[in-house]
Amino acid sequence: MKLLKVDSVEETKRKMDHYFEGISLDVEWIDIAQALGRIAAENLYAQREVPEFPRSTVDGYAVMAKDTYGASESLPTFLQLEGNVEMGEAAAQKIVPGKGVYVPTGGMLPNGADAMVMIEYVESLDGDTIAVYKAVAPGEGIMQQGEDIQKGEPVVAKGKKLKPQDIGMLAAAGIFSIKVFKKPRVFVISTGDELVHPKEETKLGQVRDINTYTLSAMALACNAEVVGQVIVRDDFQLLQNTVKHAIEKSDVVVVSGGSSVGKKDVTAKVIDSLGEPGVFIHGVAVKPGKPTIIGRVGDTAVFGLPGHPVSAMIIYKVFVEYILRRLQQLEEAQEVVIYGICDANIHSSPGKETYQMVQLEERDHQWIVKPIYGKSGAISLMTKAHGYIKIRENQEGIHKGEGVEVILL
Amino acid sequence: MKLLKVDSVEETKRKMDHYFEGISLDVEWIDIAQALGRIAAENLYAQREVPEFPRSTVDGYAVMAKDTYGASESLPTFLQLEGNVEMGEAAAQKIVPGKGVYVPTGGMLPNGADAMVMIEYVESLDGDTIAVYKAVAPGEGIMQQGEDIQKGEPVVAKGKKLKPQDIGMLAAAGIFSIKVFKKPRVFVISTGDELVHPKEETKLGQVRDINTYTLSAMALACNAEVVGQVIVRDDFQLLQNTVKHAIEKSDVVVVSGGSSVGKKDVTAKVIDSLGEPGVFIHGVAVKPGKPTIIGRVGDTAVFGLPGHPVSAMIIYKVFVEYILRRLQQLEEAQEVVIYGICDANIHSSPGKETYQMVQLEERDHQWIVKPIYGKSGAISLMTKAHGYIKIRENQEGIHKGEGVEVILL
Repeated sequence: MKLLKVDSVEETKRKMDHYFEGISLDVEWIDIAQALGRIAAENLYAQREVPEFPRSTVDGYAVMAKDTYGASESLPTFLQLEGNVEMGEAAAQKIVPGKGVYVPTGGMLPNGADAMVMIEYVESLDGDTIAVYKAVAPGEGIMQQGEDIQKGEPVVAKGKKLKPQDIGMLAAAGIFSIKVFKKPRVFVISTGDELVHPKEETKLGQVRDINTYTLSAMALACNAEVVGQVIVRDDFQLLQNTVKHAIEKSDVVVVSGGSSVGKKDVTAKVIDSLGEPGVFIHGVAVKPGKPTIIGRVGDTAVFGLPGHPVSAMIIYKVFVEYILRRLQQLEEAQEVVIYGICDANIHSSPGKETYQMVQLEERDHQWIVKPIYGKSGAISLMTKAHGYIKIRENQEGIHKGEGVEVILL
Repeated sequence: MKLLKVDSVEETKRKMDHYFEGISLDVEWIDIAQALGRIAAENLYAQREVPEFPRSTVDGYAVMAKDTYGASESLPTFLQLEGNVEMGEAAAQKIVPGKGVYVPTGGMLPNGADAMVMIEYVESLDGDTIAVYKAVAPGEGIMQQGEDIQKGEPVVAKGKKLKPQDIGMLAAAGIFSIKVFKKPRVFVISTGDELVHPKEETKLGQVRDINTYTLSAMALACNAEVVGQVIVRDDFQLLQNTVKHAIEKSDVVVVSGGSSVGKKDVTAKVIDSLGEPGVFIHGVAVKPGKPTIIGRVGDTAVFGLPGHPVSAMIIYKVFVEYILRRLQQLEEAQEVVIYGICDANIHSSPGKETYQMVQLEERDHQWIVKPIYGKSGAISLMTKAHGYIKIRENQEGIHKGEGVEVILL
């Protein structure tokens, strides 16, 4: 009974950290309008303050707050109106006790004013006088110069994946061209004597390859660029030529299939034949996905994933995405996971980290997490699942009612 | 004290449903390799069964299960070996009692076999005989023909946003070209006399526009296409020309700024001037974002959003994304939200649906939801927030310890 000597998931990640120490993607300069989903390659600091002058945050009247103290619906305060501030123009007026000036939302606050009274609480009696029906405190209805963003303040940290609000923040802070990591280039190879392209007709015993479709789509979903897709037979020479070519063109090569220990286990030998340091992981204590191979040739990561579509996808999520994040120095904490309550007892596979497919159901503002089962390799299971949960290698299993973390698919 | 007569959020959505009844995007045919994130415009059914022949899911020996009954580590069963099944080839052998055939993972199961014994539990004694150390049940280690997907089975429903596993499912099911909704075309307009392009220098009182950046990025994040971005002064004629041009080119026009009730409130008049039915929402009971305008001109949705970046982004998420989903007939349930426990009492604004920015913190496999506060219009608040929670218009507020739903930003 031959069993693989395998690494744990934590040990595998530690080895990846070790073997990819100091390796990261090249950077490029891009306009922030093209930066959605890209990863900042430097810390960015505000080039200006926001706002650049004190602004009103309401439609209303700029006043000295103390003039309004005691004002109420039954007992208004009367102020002398000193005209309007126009949008986009400097406020020329100066507020002194007993005076008010109309300022629209976003308009500049005149000198001397320290609060805004919303128009809803003001009545214009004639062109010259207003009745104020509400007391306001100093600072009310105002955004001070630099209150939103100070000049020199950090606005985006290196390793942040940029969202719409970050792009807005950069525009506001006067930063329009930024250094980001180039998109990782991924090359997807499926190997197996049984595989044919999905669009081809099959003979009995042949199988249509779907991993090039799923793994390429997963790469695109991670903002990577897919630079090649090839189906190749389990032949050392053919696979060696293909992987050699792939390594030259890409940062990450993903070979699925051909990685179980058997007479056709050529992926590891091919990786080792192409350069240093070669394979450093051969087998991981996970279920599904045990026969996982990870190596490095030059600066390129080369993965051997199981051929089963489900196993391949899970190992991709766990290890290939780990390297994609690492190459981009992406902070892991940015990925928001789902927490929920497990709805059933789940068995573990002792000594292995187990990935269990689950569905989510909302109950009382809580996610109820339901395990779903199916044959290994069933793609239909993946499309029914909302995500998966991990059961750690030394965990006894999960009890019904326990809190769990769900990684979305 | 003039107050807007406004609709509730639910009423606003009902009116959108009513005014956009029967309007949806055109469809187009694309290859599934390009379909990630696109929305299926038809129900899709499997064109073939998966697998197309019974397959082994393990490396091992195909047997008749009943031959193994009683086998154990101390008392193996001996079977006669009838050679190998090669990957990608039809199994020529026929299993009869007392015989076994080697089949690799994914290989075709020979006729007569009804189970697989994993190689770990088998010893090859000589070229002709194997010792089986474990009993297997019928069906073990096998995936039956059509077990994963039946021919004619629904595989992707109309309105589904396609993920990598869906694309794999389609490839497996023999579907390579599919009908999807065209990407919605969004035109982003910022209006305001105070606005200048962010790259320009400002004079005192002028403000750099950032909404074209944030709202365009939000459109891209929703898989829409941004077909135009314009900054325009609050002038009826100019805005009318700009919106008219935008309507001709797009499915959704988003005008931010210029929508508060005041002398510069031209957006609603412009929409009404351009065609039927025009504005059907003028003010929504939400905070922030009350002065929201929604109209329809021909088949194009036209929105007037507040000028404040934060309010504009929230109203975009709540109402513009609602229409984008509606035009693509996207099932709303696909959006996975986060549930968590609120960490503080939060006040409501009576009569308004209130959006409160929050941060998330993990504690014991649960999200703790912390409200964060800042001045209205502070873009820095949006970049600090992980998401927001809704407090319904007739809700008293949220108590510390209450379960809440978080919409991620």
